[in-house]
Amino acid sequence: MSKGVTPKSEAYSKWYTDTITKAQLADYGPVKGTMVIRPYGYGIWETVQNAFDKEFKKTGHVNAYFPLFIPKSFLSKEAEHVEGFAKECAVVTHSRLKATEDGKAVTVDPESKLEEEIIVRPTSETVIWSMYKKWITSYRDLPILINQWANVVRWEMRTRLFLRTSEFLWQEGHTAHASEQEAKEETLKILDIYKNVVQNVLAIPVLTGLKSESEKFAGAVETYCIEAMMGDTRALQAGTSHYLGQNFAKAFDVRFQTEDNKEELVYATSWGVSTRLIGALIMVHGDDKGLRLPPKVAPTQVVIVPILRKDSNPDDIKNYINNLTDILINNEVRVNVDMREKLSPGHKFNEWEMKGVPIRIEVGPRDMQNKELVVCRRDDNTKQTVNIDDAADIIMNLLDEIQNSLFNQAKTFMDSHTTCVSTWEEFQANVNNGFIVCGWDGSETTETKIKNETKATIRCLPFDQKIENLKCIYSGKDAKYLAVFAKAY
Amino acid sequence: MSKGVTPKSEAYSKWYTDTITKAQLADYGPVKGTMVIRPYGYGIWETVQNAFDKEFKKTGHVNAYFPLFIPKSFLSKEAEHVEGFAKECAVVTHSRLKATEDGKAVTVDPESKLEEEIIVRPTSETVIWSMYKKWITSYRDLPILINQWANVVRWEMRTRLFLRTSEFLWQEGHTAHASEQEAKEETLKILDIYKNVVQNVLAIPVLTGLKSESEKFAGAVETYCIEAMMGDTRALQAGTSHYLGQNFAKAFDVRFQTEDNKEELVYATSWGVSTRLIGALIMVHGDDKGLRLPPKVAPTQVVIVPILRKDSNPDDIKNYINNLTDILINNEVRVNVDMREKLSPGHKFNEWEMKGVPIRIEVGPRDMQNKELVVCRRDDNTKQTVNIDDAADIIMNLLDEIQNSLFNQAKTFMDSHTTCVSTWEEFQANVNNGFIVCGWDGSETTETKIKNETKATIRCLPFDQKIENLKCIYSGKDAKYLAVFAKAY
Repeated sequence: MSKGVTPKSEAYSKWYTDTITKAQLADYGPVKGTMVIRPYGYGIWETVQNAFDKEFKKTGHVNAYFPLFIPKSFLSKEAEHVEGFAKECAVVTHSRLKATEDGKAVTVDPESKLEEEIIVRPTSETVIWSMYKKWITSYRDLPILINQWANVVRWEMRTRLFLRTSEFLWQEGHTAHASEQEAKEETLKILDIYKNVVQNVLAIPVLTGLKSESEKFAGAVETYCIEAMMGDTRALQAGTSHYLGQNFAKAFDVRFQTEDNKEELVYATSWGVSTRLIGALIMVHGDDKGLRLPPKVAPTQVVIVPILRKDSNPDDIKNYINNLTDILINNEVRVNVDMREKLSPGHKFNEWEMKGVPIRIEVGPRDMQNKELVVCRRDDNTKQTVNIDDAADIIMNLLDEIQNSLFNQAKTFMDSHTTCVSTWEEFQANVNNGFIVCGWDGSETTETKIKNETKATIRCLPFDQKIENLKCIYSGKDAKYLAVFAKAY
Repeated sequence: MSKGVTPKSEAYSKWYTDTITKAQLADYGPVKGTMVIRPYGYGIWETVQNAFDKEFKKTGHVNAYFPLFIPKSFLSKEAEHVEGFAKECAVVTHSRLKATEDGKAVTVDPESKLEEEIIVRPTSETVIWSMYKKWITSYRDLPILINQWANVVRWEMRTRLFLRTSEFLWQEGHTAHASEQEAKEETLKILDIYKNVVQNVLAIPVLTGLKSESEKFAGAVETYCIEAMMGDTRALQAGTSHYLGQNFAKAFDVRFQTEDNKEELVYATSWGVSTRLIGALIMVHGDDKGLRLPPKVAPTQVVIVPILRKDSNPDDIKNYINNLTDILINNEVRVNVDMREKLSPGHKFNEWEMKGVPIRIEVGPRDMQNKELVVCRRDDNTKQTVNIDDAADIIMNLLDEIQNSLFNQAKTFMDSHTTCVSTWEEFQANVNNGFIVCGWDGSETTETKIKNETKATIRCLPFDQKIENLKCIYSGKDAKYLAVFAKAY
C-alpha cells in the first residue's frame, strides 16, 4: 500500500491493474481466468447492486434464483444462441473424486461419468425458459418480471480484472409478456433504468441506442445498450437490454391462452449489467493517484484521519468528532474514523486517496483548539478549513457537489472526444480519439471492413436518427443509419 | 393454486413438498438435484439474508467474493477436508462445445480438455486460504473478517427442496486471527448471532452446543451448531460455526509475523447458514393450510383484500384504504393490496393463507359505511373488526404479537418433545418423539451403535454440561458428556 500506482498517463493498462490490486479491489484467483473480489471492491458492488435493485423493484420486478447447471442439450435449442455461447463454457462431466492409489492426491472417479454433460450457465435464458414453460399457461400468468443476481461463466483465456474473467457477477432480468408492444416497452424501460443509475449513481455519462445486427445478443431480435467512454477514450459496453421476440418461446414451446381464447407464443426480454461496471468506474473517474469514487457508490464517503502528536490522547479526538460523526451517520453518510495506530497520517492519506474516498477530514490539536477541521476533496484536491459546528452541513453538500463534479468532468471528456466526421480520412484520423459519429450504409460488409481496417466497431445506432442527405463514411452510399463507432474494450 | 395442500397430519413429507410447490416457493430445475427458488421463496431468502448481513456487519465483518472454481489439487491439501468433500462434487473437465456433424446438436469438444480438472466449490475454505496466503504476512493484516454470499454445489441424488439439493445458496464466513483465543471467541460470537437471528427473526427456537467428533465439519477442530426441531419432531441442523485451529493455515502454509517478531501459523474459523433455513421455516411454523410466516421474514406482512359487489367501484376501496396503507408503508410494514380482477375473495384468501401472510385485511362496502375493516390473523385464525383510524396501530402491534406467538408455539412444541431419559428402554420409547437428553460415554463406538440401532444421532453436546453421577444411556459407563440425541433431516 505504501507505493503509489503507475501514473495513467504513462501506461494506462498498467495503471488500471495497479489501481485494482493496490486499492485492494480485486485479485487473481488460483484457477486461470478467475477473479477474487476483495472486500473493498465488493463494497462498491454492493452499493451498485442496491441502486439497481431498488429501481427494479420500484418497477414491479422481483428476484428469484435459477440453477447454475444447464443440460447440454438446452444450448442447442435456440439456433443463434448456441453459436454465441457454446464456444466458451465450462463443461461438467463427472460427479465424484477419489483418492489416488498412494492416497496422497485425488483423481476423478471414472465411474462417476454423467450420462449427459452439464454446462455451467454462461447466461440463463435457456434454463429460465424451460421453467416458464411449466409456469405459463394463460394470459393471467403474465407478465413475469423476474430478475436474478448470480454468477455466470464464460471461458476466457486473456484475463483483465473486472472486464474479462471466466466467472463474473451480474444481474440478469428475464421477462415474459403477452404482447410484442409490452415486451418492447419493457426493453426500453430497463434501458432507461440502466442509463439513469449509471449516470446518476455511478456518475458515468452514457450513450444509448440500438446495436447493429452483428453486435447484438445471440438470440435477440434487438439489443439496446448503454455505452460509456473510458479515460483512454475507448468505449465500454456498460449494459444491454434485449428484446427477444418469440425466439425463446419458440425454442421451449412456451404458449399461452390469450384473453380471447387463442393460443400464442410468449414475448420476451432479457437484460443485464455486471461487475464490469466497476471496471468502468475505475477507468472513467480514476487519476494518477488511483481511484476517485462518486459519493453515491463509495463504501466509505468520508474518512476522518486524526493527526496526533506524541502527547496527544486519541480519546480527545474521538470526543471532539463524536457529535459530527453522529450527525453524519444519522444522515446515512458512510463515515470511517481511521484510528489505526502505528501508521502515519501521510500513509493514511495516500491509502485513502488511492482508494478514492471522496472526502478526507484532518483533525489535529490546533484544529481542536480553534474548533475547526480541514476538509479535503479527492476529486479536485482542494482543502478548506471549516468550523466544526458547520462541518456536517458542508460535508453533506460537498458530497452532492463531488457527485455532480465527477459526472460533469466525465461528460466533458466524452463530449470533447466525440467527433462527427464526413470523410474516411477524418474517420481514420480520429479512430484513436473516442467516439466517431457518421453515416453507415447498414451493410455488414461495410461494418466488417471498417473493423478490419481500423479495429473500430459500431457501438450503437443512436435513437435520434438524422440521416437526411447523409452518406456512408466508408462506401459513400446513402446512409441507412447514423452510427457511433469506436475502439472498444 | 385453487386446491389446498395435503394436510400435514396425513403425510408430512407430501405436505412439505405441496406447500413449497403450491405456495410457489420453489420448483425442481431441469438438471437432476437442482432447485429453482421462485420469487416468493427468494423474497423470504432476501429478508433472511438482510437480517444476518446486518448482524455480520455490525460485528465488523465485510463481504467479498471468491471464485466458484477450485483446482482439483486444493481438495487434497487438508487431509480430513478431502474425505468430507471430494466424494460428491461437480468436476469440470472441458471448456468448449462444438456442433455435431449433422449440425443439429452440440457435443463436448475433446480438444478443450483441461490440463487439471476443476472442482465447483462445495465450500470455499481451500480457495480462500490460498488467497489468505497472499494477503497475510504480519499481525497488522489480522484479523480478516470476511463473509461471502454464494452458491455451492454438493452432488446429491436424493433431492428434497431447500433441504437437500445439488446446488444451494448460503453465506460462508472465513476469518483469520492472530491467536487461538480470538478465533475461539469469533466462533462463539457467530454462534450467538445465528441463535439470535434464527430465534428473533425466523421465530425458530434452537438448541446450541458442540458437535461430536464424528458429526463435526471435515477440517475443523470444533464445530458448534444451532439445532431446531421440525413439526414432525425430527431435528434439523440450522447453522454451524467451526473453530478450524491452524489446520487450513498449515495446509496452505499461511504464517504471520507476530508483534514480538516471531513467526506463527494463522488461526481460523468458518461458519455458514443456507437456504435450508427456509425448509426449517416451513416445517416449524406451517399448518394444514400451508405456510405461516413470522412477520419479520414475510415478504408481504399485510395483504388487503377488497370485497367488491357487482356495483362496487374499486377506486372507492383504494381511496378508503389509502391513508392506512401510507401509514403502514411509512412504518416499513410490507403491504400488498390485492386488486386482481376476476379472482374471488375466497380464492384470494386461500392463496394468501397458503402463502402464510401474517395478517389479512378484508374491506367490503359495509365496512366502508361503518368506517371499519376486518383484521384476520394467519397464526390463530382469529378475526376482529376494527375502526379504520385505529387500524394502523392495531396492525403493527399485531405483527409483533404474531411474531412472538409463533416463537412461543414452536418453543412449547420443542420443549414438550424433549425428554430426559435414564434407561435404554426409555431412549428407544422416545426415539420418534423429538430430542432425547441423556448421558453418553463419549466413545464413537457407542455413538455408532446407537445410530445403527435407532437412526438417532447426537445433535449436540449442550454448553451446560451436568454429568455428575450420570451414566451413558447405552454402555452404562460413566458419562463423559450430556448429549442431545434425535433423528435428523
